Amino acid sequence: MTEQTPPSELLKETLLEHPWLGDAINRLRELGHDYWTRGWSRGTSSNYSVVIDRNPLRVLVTASGKDKGHLGFNDFVIVDELGKLTPTDQAKSSAETLLHCSAAVHQNAGAILHTHSKWATVLSDHYAPLGGIWLEGFEMLKGLEGVSTHETRVFLPIFENTQDISALRIQVEEYWKENSSNKCWGYLIRQHGMYCWGSELSQAIRHMEVLEFLLECVGTKVSVL
Amino acid sequence: MTEQTPPSELLKETLLEHPWLGDAINRLRELGHDYWTRGWSRGTSSNYSVVIDRNPLRVLVTASGKDKGHLGFNDFVIVDELGKLTPTDQAKSSAETLLHCSAAVHQNAGAILHTHSKWATVLSDHYAPLGGIWLEGFEMLKGLEGVSTHETRVFLPIFENTQDISALRIQVEEYWKENSSNKCWGYLIRQHGMYCWGSELSQAIRHMEVLEFLLECVGTKVSVL
Amino acid sequence: MTEQTPPSELLKETLLEHPWLGDAINRLRELGHDYWTRGWSRGTSSNYSVVIDRNPLRVLVTASGKDKGHLGFNDFVIVDELGKLTPTDQAKSSAETLLHCSAAVHQNAGAILHTHSKWATVLSDHYAPLGGIWLEGFEMLKGLEGVSTHETRVFLPIFENTQDISALRIQVEEYWKENSSNKCWGYLIRQHGMYCWGSELSQAIRHMEVLEFLLECVGTKVSVL
Amino acid sequence: MTEQTPPSELLKETLLEHPWLGDAINRLRELGHDYWTRGWSRGTSSNYSVVIDRNPLRVLVTASGKDKGHLGFNDFVIVDELGKLTPTDQAKSSAETLLHCSAAVHQNAGAILHTHSKWATVLSDHYAPLGGIWLEGFEMLKGLEGVSTHETRVFLPIFENTQDISALRIQVEEYWKENSSNKCWGYLIRQHGMYCWGSELSQAIRHMEVLEFLLECVGTKVSVL
Repeated sequence: MTEQTPPSELLKETLLEHPWLGDAINRLRELGHDYWTRGWSRGTSSNYSVVIDRNPLRVLVTASGKDKGHLGFNDFVIVDELGKLTPTDQAKSSAETLLHCSAAVHQNAGAILHTHSKWATVLSDHYAPLGGIWLEGFEMLKGLEGVSTHETRVFLPIFENTQDISALRIQVEEYWKENSSNKCWGYLIRQHGMYCWGSELSQAIRHMEVLEFLLECVGTKVSVL
Repeated sequence: MTEQTPPSELLKETLLEHPWLGDAINRLRELGHDYWTRGWSRGTSSNYSVVIDRNPLRVLVTASGKDKGHLGFNDFVIVDELGKLTPTDQAKSSAETLLHCSAAVHQNAGAILHTHSKWATVLSDHYAPLGGIWLEGFEMLKGLEGVSTHETRVFLPIFENTQDISALRIQVEEYWKENSSNKCWGYLIRQHGMYCWGSELSQAIRHMEVLEFLLECVGTKVSVL
Repeated sequence: MTEQTPPSELLKETLLEHPWLGDAINRLRELGHDYWTRGWSRGTSSNYSVVIDRNPLRVLVTASGKDKGHLGFNDFVIVDELGKLTPTDQAKSSAETLLHCSAAVHQNAGAILHTHSKWATVLSDHYAPLGGIWLEGFEMLKGLEGVSTHETRVFLPIFENTQDISALRIQVEEYWKENSSNKCWGYLIRQHGMYCWGSELSQAIRHMEVLEFLLECVGTKVSVL
Repeated sequence: MTEQTPPSELLKETLLEHPWLGDAINRLRELGHDYWTRGWSRGTSSNYSVVIDRNPLRVLVTASGKDKGHLGFNDFVIVDELGKLTPTDQAKSSAETLLHCSAAVHQNAGAILHTHSKWATVLSDHYAPLGGIWLEGFEMLKGLEGVSTHETRVFLPIFENTQDISALRIQVEEYWKENSSNKCWGYLIRQHGMYCWGSELSQAIRHMEVLEFLLECVGTKVSVL
């Protein structure tokens, strides 16, 4: 990450108001390289975002189709609460940007990470008939914000995959409404990947590591033992 | 990739006409290191190429027997549409160079990547009786050029391995002719490895990552669950 | 590990008396990055420690909740034999610090490493009904201090996980007392992770590598063959 | 490998006569780091050697008990054809040094590599009742010197592990004598690891990569499919 591209005009302006954003962007670039190396973000898949402003909502998210192993400083766009580019003269954003905005609004997330790992892909198909995966009894669960004991049951819901992201968004938000008494740290989309988030970027990163680790344990336990 | 060998006389001339080629060579060297690290190009296996010219066809391809984890700037040769060295006074090229030229001509590929991963080796044997592997329902399929939904079935044909590369080339080209209505992104050779390509290098790299990821998912799904 | 934060006032004082400690801290930081990369210390899990003094006991241990992939020079605290911060005005230490102190006292350990790998998590559950895992017949056993032949049986006990670390400590120490004629190199906590140690840091590191390698062999052998 | 220790007096003298040896040592150090990262040389296991002279035989081999992930320039010793230190005032060499000398003499090896990978450990136990592993039909076999087609059967013999290295050496040499009409590229020691070699270091490295890759394919094929 030694490469130093000068920020775009838009980013330069945004950085004046939000000086912390430069570090966040570089952290996402490093994260992209880590996830790509681990096989969680291969082939230009995945999207990562951080919330810049709440009123009105402004989210910085990876532009569509970028190689996550080699993200440049300007490979991000800024969108509003509907996932629309604001201002409009930016690179294309992914259709899935809407799911980032949805988590920002309804889960009060400050950062949202979406990956396509092997275990998220395979287990989301294997457990789809059960509607989700129960993660239970693992010490590592304590890495999820608010969990203080391994004697915990955490449900990772699985949604059917679709290219109609607006429809998927409604499904996810309905799930949250119906299960509002249970904290939700992330979800899977069938044969697609994982979404998770945190109140800030470091927490979202921790949650991703914890959930991916637990999926790997479940996959190993269920299948090979 | 900090090592800076001065280009050979031949390469120096070619770079004058095609200044973009220097970056492509360095990208292939970096790619070789990545693939070697991941175990896709161990023990001097694999070949990578980019098309320099179309009329007549000129392809730059890794010289025979090089360690792909430590490719030098001059570890490449230039061949014509028959895979013959042009000019002739260059290092040896692999017999398989012909398959690179074949994809350049018949699939209009601008870059061709050939690797020997564990999953390509093992699954090409397992699925050989079916003639290929169906990749279906994965979101990651959208990383293949022209695929816009996970509700897609992509066929990865498997050819029997042979040391008669001319015969193999004919077999592959006949398959393409007979299946000309179906787009083909790559193929497997039994207990040997994968060939894939793209209109340009970045697309070929994306296709390799997508196909390898999907093979790993298939291998995990079929075998351990 | 190029980042050079100046040491805190407390650390500066301690380094004056124990000049070797600076290298040990940097070795632990590097170790954290290695273990995080390998998936043994994901999501702020794990703790590493070295003994500074014996009379009275002073242990330097990673502060609570740190990302082990990016440990800073000051991400450590100093505790006494009861795991209490000394002096008290330091960052929080993990509740599990007590288990480090316990191994320092009862196993005469000079360094203690605690990790959360996939195999330690999954196999500690699988073998819990047997009370532990027998490691037998492996040449790699000779990497454990005092083992000079592969014709050895080493028992890795498994304890039930609990958030009551004082109770767990008593259980572990009772196990050691009852089995005082058998050398113990480490133990597992069910669905939680591994503890191991050595007379000095390099030995503890060697023990962790050996035990993790053997767990991987056992997991592969038991499950996939 | 940026660390630059000045060579010992002994090494300085030897380098005067054999200037190529400096590069070989640095290549072995880099190799140690690669193998340690891949899990083939964990916990101070493994030994690597190169032949310096033939009449009389002089072999440079890693000193006993070194961390292969962080080999220093002086972490090597020089031995004669019986594996004895020559001169005698050097660091301890491994008892297994004798097996390096044996391959140097009887296989005309210029470099010998010994590793402890997961697959070598687990498969050498699984296939021990058959006396070895047949590697057959893989294109990757062509990475072994002298193999020009995948239609080849290569036998990797397995010897029972023992701490009596002189006895093991006799067993190995008897196997070679009885099977002198078949080329041998390496062998396994049960629940211990792999030995392989080449006429020079680069060939030994290629052979190790090829054999390890094929063991991984066999392990995956036999067990999970």
